[in-house]
Amino acid sequence: MQRYFMQSNYQPQADYALTGEIFHHMIRVMRMKPAERVYLVFTDQTTIIAEITEVREEQVLVKEVAKEVQEKELPLAITIASGYPKGDKLEWIVQKGTELGAAGFIGFPAQASVVKWDSKKLAKKAQRLEKIAQEAAEQSQRQVTPIVKLLENSGQLYQLLAQFDVILVAYEESAKAGEGAQLVQVLQEAAVGTRILAVFGPEGGIMPAEIEKLTAAGGRLCGLGPRILRTETAPLYLLSAASFYRELLVK
Amino acid sequence: MQRYFMQSNYQPQADYALTGEIFHHMIRVMRMKPAERVYLVFTDQTTIIAEITEVREEQVLVKEVAKEVQEKELPLAITIASGYPKGDKLEWIVQKGTELGAAGFIGFPAQASVVKWDSKKLAKKAQRLEKIAQEAAEQSQRQVTPIVKLLENSGQLYQLLAQFDVILVAYEESAKAGEGAQLVQVLQEAAVGTRILAVFGPEGGIMPAEIEKLTAAGGRLCGLGPRILRTETAPLYLLSAASFYRELLVK
Repeated sequence: MQRYFMQSNYQPQADYALTGEIFHHMIRVMRMKPAERVYLVFTDQTTIIAEITEVREEQVLVKEVAKEVQEKELPLAITIASGYPKGDKLEWIVQKGTELGAAGFIGFPAQASVVKWDSKKLAKKAQRLEKIAQEAAEQSQRQVTPIVKLLENSGQLYQLLAQFDVILVAYEESAKAGEGAQLVQVLQEAAVGTRILAVFGPEGGIMPAEIEKLTAAGGRLCGLGPRILRTETAPLYLLSAASFYRELLVK
Repeated sequence: MQRYFMQSNYQPQADYALTGEIFHHMIRVMRMKPAERVYLVFTDQTTIIAEITEVREEQVLVKEVAKEVQEKELPLAITIASGYPKGDKLEWIVQKGTELGAAGFIGFPAQASVVKWDSKKLAKKAQRLEKIAQEAAEQSQRQVTPIVKLLENSGQLYQLLAQFDVILVAYEESAKAGEGAQLVQVLQEAAVGTRILAVFGPEGGIMPAEIEKLTAAGGRLCGLGPRILRTETAPLYLLSAASFYRELLVK
């Protein structure tokens, strides 16, 4: 559909009279007829879909039928699974991860998790995190609010693995060994809408027994660059890399 | 220099006796002589530089002369300039930005900055931030500690601009307009060691008068994806993207 750039900021009007070059291009060059549609891009970046209602001598009248919706969601559905970290780090991960486009968050008691939360505490915490996710989604102009799930035992995490197309496990040992291919490959090859689970350990990291279960389920151990990232920083790196690669570099 | 992969984990020894295929390749194929050097990569990923001390019948003796140093620093020297944000956000930016490889941090009073800090308060805050940067550099195994500069007036920022090769300005309006090319181009084209200044506004954003001065000095307005990022999140996105592109994707 043809795009025309207006010289003014967007102001809602019953109809818009297009003249001069735009009129000439629409009617003389494109030979458009009533009911045909075009994009009108205003100087404030607002873009509307407009439909021709009438063609006059030297102007064409159009009316707005809809706003163009800009895609705000990551083309990959990335869920961040975090082994329960200390303090309010989970709040930080959910707030920042929501801004950065995460599809959802899963908290689970990892072997190295220091905090122990009972179901009552978890329910309260989940409520709080859902509120943080919603506020962050609004502030960052997301079109959806990420889902938050807090698990009572790690077995529930392993049961969830089958729901994802790709499982990435951020492993400190892989980072130390200079592993850098897994994340690249996933971001390069994953089809739009691919459901990716990215698993992160708590401060103590992911234990060998956990690595075994995750890799047995198809989990791919990945490094996130040569510097050792804290448990609350690593998910932001992964989400930022996904956005940069899929939303800026390869569009 | 030739790399040979050992079948054992690294254990410091006076000398290492290499036999079998490695011996064959070093001596029969490569015709190496004493004093020549090779890399030995152990199964725990430790890599040493080893020098031949003696060639025997069916084995060659080598001694460790050094460990191979893994590069931990971003190939681009990215300095984060933040308009003074509220609360302890600057602490977060410095801690996370250090983990993510920033070369330095500059704080400045932007037009929209709510907080007003006098020189005494700034000196105290700078000390605290330097400590945070040092701790984060150690924890993330950086080889250098980022420099922290807190400016008393924005004029000092504009005076510093000439010290950088590239100036990126994270501009919310650019993000809203879908700008995505500037960051990509800079990360693609910047030579190793390029000094990049990335400027971020406080909560209120960067004002038109500031944009004018920055662009007049060659600043390039860039978007960081379709979602609106908070002032403390945007720098982490930029650093993560730089690491992903220059350390993982294109090595």
